[in-house]
Amino acid sequence: MRLARPLENLIDHLAKLPSIGPKTAQRLALYILRLPAEEARQLARAIVEVQQKIKPCSQCGFLTEFDPCVICQDHDRDNQILCIVEESSNVIAIEKSGFRGRYFVLNKPSSLLEGSGLEELDGQALETYLSGGEFKEVIMALNPDIDGEIMARYLAAIIQAKGIKITRLAHGLPVGGDIEFTDEITLRRAIEGRREL
Amino acid sequence: MRLARPLENLIDHLAKLPSIGPKTAQRLALYILRLPAEEARQLARAIVEVQQKIKPCSQCGFLTEFDPCVICQDHDRDNQILCIVEESSNVIAIEKSGFRGRYFVLNKPSSLLEGSGLEELDGQALETYLSGGEFKEVIMALNPDIDGEIMARYLAAIIQAKGIKITRLAHGLPVGGDIEFTDEITLRRAIEGRREL
Repeated sequence: MRLARPLENLIDHLAKLPSIGPKTAQRLALYILRLPAEEARQLARAIVEVQQKIKPCSQCGFLTEFDPCVICQDHDRDNQILCIVEESSNVIAIEKSGFRGRYFVLNKPSSLLEGSGLEELDGQALETYLSGGEFKEVIMALNPDIDGEIMARYLAAIIQAKGIKITRLAHGLPVGGDIEFTDEITLRRAIEGRREL
Repeated sequence: MRLARPLENLIDHLAKLPSIGPKTAQRLALYILRLPAEEARQLARAIVEVQQKIKPCSQCGFLTEFDPCVICQDHDRDNQILCIVEESSNVIAIEKSGFRGRYFVLNKPSSLLEGSGLEELDGQALETYLSGGEFKEVIMALNPDIDGEIMARYLAAIIQAKGIKITRLAHGLPVGGDIEFTDEITLRRAIEGRREL
């Protein structure tokens, strides 16, 4: 005895998505089955459309409907400072902080920890982008994890060869954070990077 | 600054699904964006197909491609005992335990705790199903939670009116479970339902 084939089929597809286990996949499939028909069609269409319409910007890698993207078309930015990020969503977060330089989005390969994956990182695209610009500084705004470390080292070689200064985001206590609940590595970095009051 | 519209659109749709928060929705959307085109199309198609092809069995409510379902068409079952369950997936679980009676699937309304929702429970369908059968006993195999309690009381009235015996699944320690980690209500039920060795 099994569930009906189209239901099993949807469960199988959902279970392949990251962080969706078999139980969640089953719950989602039953939920989708009961959605109003129009809502289910919209979800299906959104999946197909995201693939058809969204591409990385040919210059900076930001995911965009229009190439070049809105950021590359914005002439009101500091062209001497470049911020390298892993994902387009990080651009949104950094824009909110007030930064108005240029970006380069790596669209991080998901395979980085599974295999080597570094060959998927497009070093050539970064080199081309740097050559076409007038950058004085590159901020590495990569996540503070192993993947981020690996990518940062790989990219640093490319940037240094151009004689451009490299910086990275400061480590330390998150604003509003609690010392008691901060891990020891972060605390050590916060002490190393202490500032005079 | 926002992400590209088709990407935001997919994130919005995914975030409406149960147990998918905005962060997970974003991660899923980026993952879907990078799927091979054929896999993304298959996922979209599976969503549309599950709605077009799957319906509750007109007799017992089991989700099925063909009406009546395989269980209703199976003549090699005990027709005197009926098991009422909330979801079709519960039928699969109970079949594995070796039970070979009939089933009635409620396809539990998701709204039960939010509003009243009981009017969505098809009492009339159960009554029709009971009238067409020769049942001597109905096992309430509903989940041991508030929803299950509410539904059980509502349905019990319908079944009792037909003079059919009602039973429910036993409560107690799960096989392989540990007394130390069993909650007090389950333990109390296990003591109440103790059996002679």
